[in-house]
Amino acid sequence: MLTVFGTMALDTTRTPFRTEVRILGGAATFASLSACVFTKTAMVAVIGSDMPKENISALDRKGIDTRGLVTVKNGKTFHYDSSFDYNLSNRTTNKTELNVIADFNPVIPAEYAGSDYVYLANNDPKQNIKILEHFASPKLVACDTIEYWIEQDRDNVVKMMGKTDAVVINDSEARLLCKEVNLARCAKKILSFGPKFAIIKKGEHGAILFSSDGEVFPAPAFFLDEISDPTGAGDSFAGGFVGHVAKIGKVDFRTLKEAVIYGNVMGSFAVQDFGVKKLLSITADDVWERYEKYRNLVQF
Amino acid sequence: MLTVFGTMALDTTRTPFRTEVRILGGAATFASLSACVFTKTAMVAVIGSDMPKENISALDRKGIDTRGLVTVKNGKTFHYDSSFDYNLSNRTTNKTELNVIADFNPVIPAEYAGSDYVYLANNDPKQNIKILEHFASPKLVACDTIEYWIEQDRDNVVKMMGKTDAVVINDSEARLLCKEVNLARCAKKILSFGPKFAIIKKGEHGAILFSSDGEVFPAPAFFLDEISDPTGAGDSFAGGFVGHVAKIGKVDFRTLKEAVIYGNVMGSFAVQDFGVKKLLSITADDVWERYEKYRNLVQF
Repeated sequence: MLTVFGTMALDTTRTPFRTEVRILGGAATFASLSACVFTKTAMVAVIGSDMPKENISALDRKGIDTRGLVTVKNGKTFHYDSSFDYNLSNRTTNKTELNVIADFNPVIPAEYAGSDYVYLANNDPKQNIKILEHFASPKLVACDTIEYWIEQDRDNVVKMMGKTDAVVINDSEARLLCKEVNLARCAKKILSFGPKFAIIKKGEHGAILFSSDGEVFPAPAFFLDEISDPTGAGDSFAGGFVGHVAKIGKVDFRTLKEAVIYGNVMGSFAVQDFGVKKLLSITADDVWERYEKYRNLVQF
Repeated sequence: MLTVFGTMALDTTRTPFRTEVRILGGAATFASLSACVFTKTAMVAVIGSDMPKENISALDRKGIDTRGLVTVKNGKTFHYDSSFDYNLSNRTTNKTELNVIADFNPVIPAEYAGSDYVYLANNDPKQNIKILEHFASPKLVACDTIEYWIEQDRDNVVKMMGKTDAVVINDSEARLLCKEVNLARCAKKILSFGPKFAIIKKGEHGAILFSSDGEVFPAPAFFLDEISDPTGAGDSFAGGFVGHVAKIGKVDFRTLKEAVIYGNVMGSFAVQDFGVKKLLSITADDVWERYEKYRNLVQF
């Protein structure tokens, strides 16, 4: 079983081609929707009473265990409003309303404490460190982080990473965290914090997996002609990555290499429609089929 | 046989770690040194009488046919002076002295006219178009170009590409040429100019091969912990790419996919030492060995 902790949000996403207001989003949502294709997934997050019920039903229908969702009465859900440029490559934040997230004191339901796999989607590193104490003895803990926490609380970001087995992080955030441009050096620094694996996500350029044993695995992204909305690609990557490791039940380099490919595959689905729409509609068969397509694509 | 036409230069390259003054460089030099591992390679370029004899001997020793080198008496060789930043990722041009290149009226030696393979390393597109008339019936003509020509003479760049079978181009230059950020759209546009293949080089992120039949092949770069001097990586990629096609003697997608990998391999050698130093020292065995390493690296 995999427990995902992080944000569940209402996103307003604007592209030059289309705008969607207050649609389901959040790091934990994308990661869970992606992971649930691979393994039994439970979600811990806080929402306000303004979160439409059908969004939770949609997660339930995908088999996600939503008992860990805490609804704050009269509270408002985390709301993120952003705009993409014509090329969908640069995002501008219009508004970030933390709302119920600000004072959340997360509790891990007793049923989740035995989780073998834990994914800490981007969140307050101090909260993440505390949450890890709730789990008995997970086989793999992975985390992500963003610019905001690196800038506000780098010490605890580093401490949190030291308590995980795998760090999944964007290239720009790895560079900010490590004060290095060279991604190999960034990975070495992240591994020096304690985790056994560092996965650096490079958006359209794919990802690179590094192990503390010196192993490296670069993988290009699945190739898409067109994308609709880049929101959630990194979270979906992480969900597919951790989900596949949980499914296989082994934390070795070979499994993690496959997990990177599944991460790429899930990220490629996420960007094909607005918000979580595509992730809601795909089946396990769609995922295996795209995995095979990916294998053919990169074969030489 | 492969004929390479382009610049042979003296480069002054400055990094925060080391500076080398007036060392052997130029697009045709890197491309030829890279291609000659795969196939019989002849070079056409103009130099001044200041080009040290040992540089030409070094090419001769690698088996490159240098009869196409034209020395202008009392002329000065093309000189390019540039500096890299601390991360070796941004280059600043300090000085560009065209010298003998400016008025060169290239002649293709009769012995080269039967070449089955032609690589037009970055050069004046009008000159390239004229040069192609000297070749009887090559099986594959490939070309590259740079910002300078796209800005000065875009029409002839497009016309030149229409007379080739494969365009090998940097991502930033593809974007500039096509006025598109999305690389898939750039490739479509380049293919619409006439060539059957477009290869977009992405530096540390590898390369993507596109065919006019809609086939795509993304390949990550060979992974290196450290680099010494990025100069010539793209030209070495192109040399390995065209060289492998010439060696196999087939212009199909399967061969071109392998050629992209050999391009990555040759680019990775080029950046490991200053200027052409590494390319001068490697053997065919080194190349096959790294190709196998690459295969293992990306396998999953």
